[in-house]
Amino acid sequence: MGGFHIREARDADWPSCWRIIQPVFAAGETYPAYGGIDSEEARAYWMVSARKTYVAVDEDGSLLGTYYLRPNQPGRGDHVCNCGYVTADVARGRGIATAMCEHSQREATRLGFTAMQFNLVVATNTAAVRLWRKLGFEIIGTLPGVFRHDRLGPVDAHVMFKQLSGG
Amino acid sequence: MGGFHIREARDADWPSCWRIIQPVFAAGETYPAYGGIDSEEARAYWMVSARKTYVAVDEDGSLLGTYYLRPNQPGRGDHVCNCGYVTADVARGRGIATAMCEHSQREATRLGFTAMQFNLVVATNTAAVRLWRKLGFEIIGTLPGVFRHDRLGPVDAHVMFKQLSGG
Repeated sequence: MGGFHIREARDADWPSCWRIIQPVFAAGETYPAYGGIDSEEARAYWMVSARKTYVAVDEDGSLLGTYYLRPNQPGRGDHVCNCGYVTADVARGRGIATAMCEHSQREATRLGFTAMQFNLVVATNTAAVRLWRKLGFEIIGTLPGVFRHDRLGPVDAHVMFKQLSGG
Repeated sequence: MGGFHIREARDADWPSCWRIIQPVFAAGETYPAYGGIDSEEARAYWMVSARKTYVAVDEDGSLLGTYYLRPNQPGRGDHVCNCGYVTADVARGRGIATAMCEHSQREATRLGFTAMQFNLVVATNTAAVRLWRKLGFEIIGTLPGVFRHDRLGPVDAHVMFKQLSGG
């Protein structure tokens, strides 16, 4: 299995990030972005407009995953952050998503955020729902049919939330 | 009380819109934007990046309210819209908010949206919560302490949702 580490992304990481993000968008099962979105649009969302972007890197330097962190609302709501995570297909089963989510909670706390919110956790993505619950996130509510799944059509999505402070 | 009508906003409406939006932001009780936000930033959010912006106009041409309509998510979530409404203080009690919300549901349907979602209805804004429920919106879930109210400190906010199709 081998070790890996998580660090802030650099501009030069984008082509590798895009290689693992693009298939996830194209699959249309977990993220709302269409497969047709181009690299520049995706980079604008994942790296430019995010507060921070991180990568999980293998011992040999290859990219295993990436995540972004941003305020979920402006102004009076900017103490709650939002993150999005993508794990490389080849890296499944190594605990990358768990490591990235735990890392993101530490980073969010360090940056002054006191809670983390996921706005659209696709209900059919049961592995993700199970993992976020295991990591302390609660389902606040379920939005009916808000995600047009590529194979299944409209499916529900959860709003999930975790307090970070005092934990 | 007199009649009023609702129409799409024009660029020239912005100064009047800002005169009624700015005090609402400055009050810090219902919208996350800080009072310090300037007119251009507010215009970028309310008019430029929105899919559509509308105004409620009195018989004498004065502005009574305004709302925006936009997709709540990109791509596979863009069949659900989001709206934000502001009513002029002097126009309270005339049913402007009700008229704007009903208008927005018709417009959203016409534009192809099948549902409407409010992401942050401040729980202490009981008049708004009551009105949206009366107009068919359901509280999907309640986010703890996600809004830093100007007078009350951190307060809860609801995610509210309404299906528009088949209704």
